[in-house]
Amino acid sequence: MRVMGLDPGLRALGWGVVDVSGSKLVHVANGICHTATGPLGPRLVALFDELTSIWETFAPDAAAVEQTFVNKDGAGTLKLGQARGIAMLVPARAGIEVGEYAPNAVKKAVVGVGHADKRQVEHMVRMQLPGVEIAGADAADALAIAICHAHMRQSAARMRTALA
Amino acid sequence: MRVMGLDPGLRALGWGVVDVSGSKLVHVANGICHTATGPLGPRLVALFDELTSIWETFAPDAAAVEQTFVNKDGAGTLKLGQARGIAMLVPARAGIEVGEYAPNAVKKAVVGVGHADKRQVEHMVRMQLPGVEIAGADAADALAIAICHAHMRQSAARMRTALA
Repeated sequence: MRVMGLDPGLRALGWGVVDVSGSKLVHVANGICHTATGPLGPRLVALFDELTSIWETFAPDAAAVEQTFVNKDGAGTLKLGQARGIAMLVPARAGIEVGEYAPNAVKKAVVGVGHADKRQVEHMVRMQLPGVEIAGADAADALAIAICHAHMRQSAARMRTALA
Repeated sequence: MRVMGLDPGLRALGWGVVDVSGSKLVHVANGICHTATGPLGPRLVALFDELTSIWETFAPDAAAVEQTFVNKDGAGTLKLGQARGIAMLVPARAGIEVGEYAPNAVKKAVVGVGHADKRQVEHMVRMQLPGVEIAGADAADALAIAICHAHMRQSAARMRTALA
């Protein structure tokens, strides 16, 4: 199973793809979509086009997005929401159910505690994906979201097997 | 010139199309895209598909979206942002520059004062588009945004002519 994690933002949208086989995780790719400043419409189109192209390149079977609205103000939250709308639209258009995880749930799945800081998260991402080169902090977060989603889906599958 | 106004919301997204010829406004169509409850991804896809189809049906030359983040909480603003991202993406993908107006600017353009209530706005929309049948409050807002954008573009054009 191939999982894409997405850390949405209007200026920088992090993405990360991992392959999951049993309990084994393998890094596939990660990166950051940067949009130029300027009018919102063309920025959203650039994000949509770039993310659609990445999606088609790696063709994931599953996807998850961080669920956060922690932001300084309403205007900032609205901007984040616009980018997040695009980040959810692209996988959903491919018929994929998109997982949503609160930042603490991602940290708990990756580090083991919900209050871990960014450095700890990136450290654990590196431990779980040996040899990975990470494009930046947003890409590290995206990989953490992908790892979290992989764990959650495996737990759900184990539970279904146990109950069957 | 054909203008589409959009009043974004995740549950109900209002849209309205008017034709502008000199100082004359003619109503073309209006409606509301309702999305079912359920997971966010498919709702955003439904919004995107419905709006794209409406866009292709009426092929506007211009578009504008209300600029608002007035909402009870961060979660509500994030939801609104996601719907607004889709509302801006569709016209922007067609290469159209999307106008953004604060609610008070829309009221000022349509009613003459920035603090008008919803009934006054709807009344003036009906006055300026004789015979219009309005699908609901969100569609009335969308028509008001279209009328506002038409006025603003004409003022800008007059100014350019005067300065030429």
